[in-house]
Amino acid sequence: MQRRGLLVILSSPSGAGKSTLSRRLMAWDPTLKFSVSATTRAPRPGEVDGREYYFRSRAEFEDMVAAGEMLEHAEVFGNFYGSPKGPVVAAMEAGRDTLFDIDWQGGQQIRNSVLGRDVVSIFILPPSIAELERRLTTRAQDAPEVIAARMEKSLAEISHWAEYDYVLVNSDLDAAEQELRTILTAERMRRDRQPWLNEFVRGLNREFEAR
Amino acid sequence: MQRRGLLVILSSPSGAGKSTLSRRLMAWDPTLKFSVSATTRAPRPGEVDGREYYFRSRAEFEDMVAAGEMLEHAEVFGNFYGSPKGPVVAAMEAGRDTLFDIDWQGGQQIRNSVLGRDVVSIFILPPSIAELERRLTTRAQDAPEVIAARMEKSLAEISHWAEYDYVLVNSDLDAAEQELRTILTAERMRRDRQPWLNEFVRGLNREFEAR
Repeated sequence: MQRRGLLVILSSPSGAGKSTLSRRLMAWDPTLKFSVSATTRAPRPGEVDGREYYFRSRAEFEDMVAAGEMLEHAEVFGNFYGSPKGPVVAAMEAGRDTLFDIDWQGGQQIRNSVLGRDVVSIFILPPSIAELERRLTTRAQDAPEVIAARMEKSLAEISHWAEYDYVLVNSDLDAAEQELRTILTAERMRRDRQPWLNEFVRGLNREFEAR
Repeated sequence: MQRRGLLVILSSPSGAGKSTLSRRLMAWDPTLKFSVSATTRAPRPGEVDGREYYFRSRAEFEDMVAAGEMLEHAEVFGNFYGSPKGPVVAAMEAGRDTLFDIDWQGGQQIRNSVLGRDVVSIFILPPSIAELERRLTTRAQDAPEVIAARMEKSLAEISHWAEYDYVLVNSDLDAAEQELRTILTAERMRRDRQPWLNEFVRGLNREFEAR
């Protein structure tokens, strides 16, 4: 009997290394399925529907929510974002873990959903605000006020750190990746995630009786 | 601020490799404290009071129980066994994890005690009954009926596997040791076991305000 797949939630302020760590985790374990979010925002140049996001109209998005097809959804800066439920349930039933790169609002909703007991949630903190600001500034050629708004949003995100099962400080990417691997390996080993044990112990009992 | 130490409980039928794995885990992490049990049974040749066991008279043992100094205790084959609470609480407060090599009765009592939320419990299964019997027979030059009684006791112990957080099948000592290390490393990383994070996040907030 196969185990149910886990819902692995990674959250962090923008610039704390979550996307890089997600990619590394996917490279380490190709059985991990990445949850592609749906959004009502317009695609940016180079973004492909179904790869970066599922790009949907507002009406389509609202229909999905009404039909119960969203595991979580929220409005951020005037656009809707959400995690479609179908692929996640399919992965769980196939014994594959799904990786979510989502914010605290999404994490909170999934943790409090009926799938909550299969959630492993991990928050990634930056080593310092100076480092966070440096990463946010380096990666975008944006105006200071845009950076400032992102920093405010980062701090709001950080305020939810204590809702997560695990919290890492990403001072070193290799160390943080190793920590993520350890968490995932151990969580998969939990007894209630190893349904084959039932049959294994029945086998021991049969072997004992048959001696 | 230091984290509270964990109570790491290893249980298994006799012959499944629990003692060997305990020793290996202690060698891997010298900060682990081994919980030496108290017992009313007589010392065997070579056994030292305070090393293998705290050897106590029945009256002394009952006084400890009455004074609430036992974390758990049980009667096995006419003798009392128990885990003194004092050293465990001292270790917890010093941020050190305690390793318990105890049976399901002790595990159940500690899990259901006020210290239960700091418990990580691991059950070790043998790969097969034949292998368990082989190990039990090799290590003791005992009469067949003694072996048979031990096998019955082993099966009773195995029946409690589903009460544990983690369950390992010890087919290979190195692999089982690695699994124990992974479990312990991940459990120590849980957010509620990292009290320094509170101060760390306060520091990020202060740094943000001071920019």
